[in-house]
Amino acid sequence: MSFTLWFVGLPSCGKSTVARRVETKLKERGFKVENLDGDNVRQNLHPELGFSKEDRGTNNRRIGFICKLLNKNDVVAIVAAIAPYREYREKVREMVEEAGRFVLIYVECPVEVCRSRDPKGLYEKAERGEIKNFTGVNDPFEAPQEGECQIKIDASEQSIEQSTQAVIDGLELLGLVEPRSASGLTTEEEEVVKERLRNLGYLD
Amino acid sequence: MSFTLWFVGLPSCGKSTVARRVETKLKERGFKVENLDGDNVRQNLHPELGFSKEDRGTNNRRIGFICKLLNKNDVVAIVAAIAPYREYREKVREMVEEAGRFVLIYVECPVEVCRSRDPKGLYEKAERGEIKNFTGVNDPFEAPQEGECQIKIDASEQSIEQSTQAVIDGLELLGLVEPRSASGLTTEEEEVVKERLRNLGYLD
Repeated sequence: MSFTLWFVGLPSCGKSTVARRVETKLKERGFKVENLDGDNVRQNLHPELGFSKEDRGTNNRRIGFICKLLNKNDVVAIVAAIAPYREYREKVREMVEEAGRFVLIYVECPVEVCRSRDPKGLYEKAERGEIKNFTGVNDPFEAPQEGECQIKIDASEQSIEQSTQAVIDGLELLGLVEPRSASGLTTEEEEVVKERLRNLGYLD
Repeated sequence: MSFTLWFVGLPSCGKSTVARRVETKLKERGFKVENLDGDNVRQNLHPELGFSKEDRGTNNRRIGFICKLLNKNDVVAIVAAIAPYREYREKVREMVEEAGRFVLIYVECPVEVCRSRDPKGLYEKAERGEIKNFTGVNDPFEAPQEGECQIKIDASEQSIEQSTQAVIDGLELLGLVEPRSASGLTTEEEEVVKERLRNLGYLD
């Protein structure tokens, strides 16, 4: 069964960066992966949508539909999108799970840290009232609770590399990705090697 | 390289029926295939869209974006949608061809024949003015010309089976599908069989 990884979190929390690293890791392990970056999808799918609650819901729903189609065809879908409303996240989960596993990854980061990392100065603009509906400043973010998210990343304490590893570890625990041993082999590959050694009389 | 098959034609010309048969044939040959039926996509992706020229363009563009994502991941995309405007079809072609081959299949059928096959009586309703923007009655259909469509089906003369075969033949000619010989094997499979017979001394 394929799966969808949906990274949620405040603007500039680092979700797109970690999502891209995870994408690379999964491709290295032989998965087909499509990374649907929130900004890119908005541009291509529906540039006319804004950031009202309703438009955010529509954005999430449509991305969810695409994830479902990808999962149905054994393509892992990765999404980095704020997705601030629980009710829309739950609708997406329902839709995706008709075809694959939906894994919500909460990229947790205090708003002050996000603000300090913000390369485009969007937080400041929002604070000056130049941007409306800016999540974390003048628009709500309903943080995923324990029961809702499958993996949580502490993006203010962990390095990008640590966060990426935490996601891979989480996927292994969920049984979606084959664990690698210290040898760098999957348990399946290890079994093949052991079998050969056994046949050659080197192992009992 | 993967590909997108876009079946265009008047309402009730038979495009969805042939599209489903082609889907089955391609799956039998080992392709991963996603069939994006026009009505189904509208329901799931954007039920709020109507049938104005602009809305039809938006519908086509979004489906095209999904086809591109599927093709990028080696999934064949099949679409059955009226797509009456040449300019939007050309935009879709441009977008899809960033990732795969775009094959326009024109399911040609005289409007009287479509009307006689129409199971829901939509043509009659449109003629009575109960449906607006109904392609073939009170909305235009810009039939694809020679240069635009890669495969043309005569849906009033051919049986569904013949139309399906015409599409498969066309895909073989375009080099997108491996031809099958009279033996039912692909040329590649035939080569393997020949090689074995050669090794056994049955063939020079």
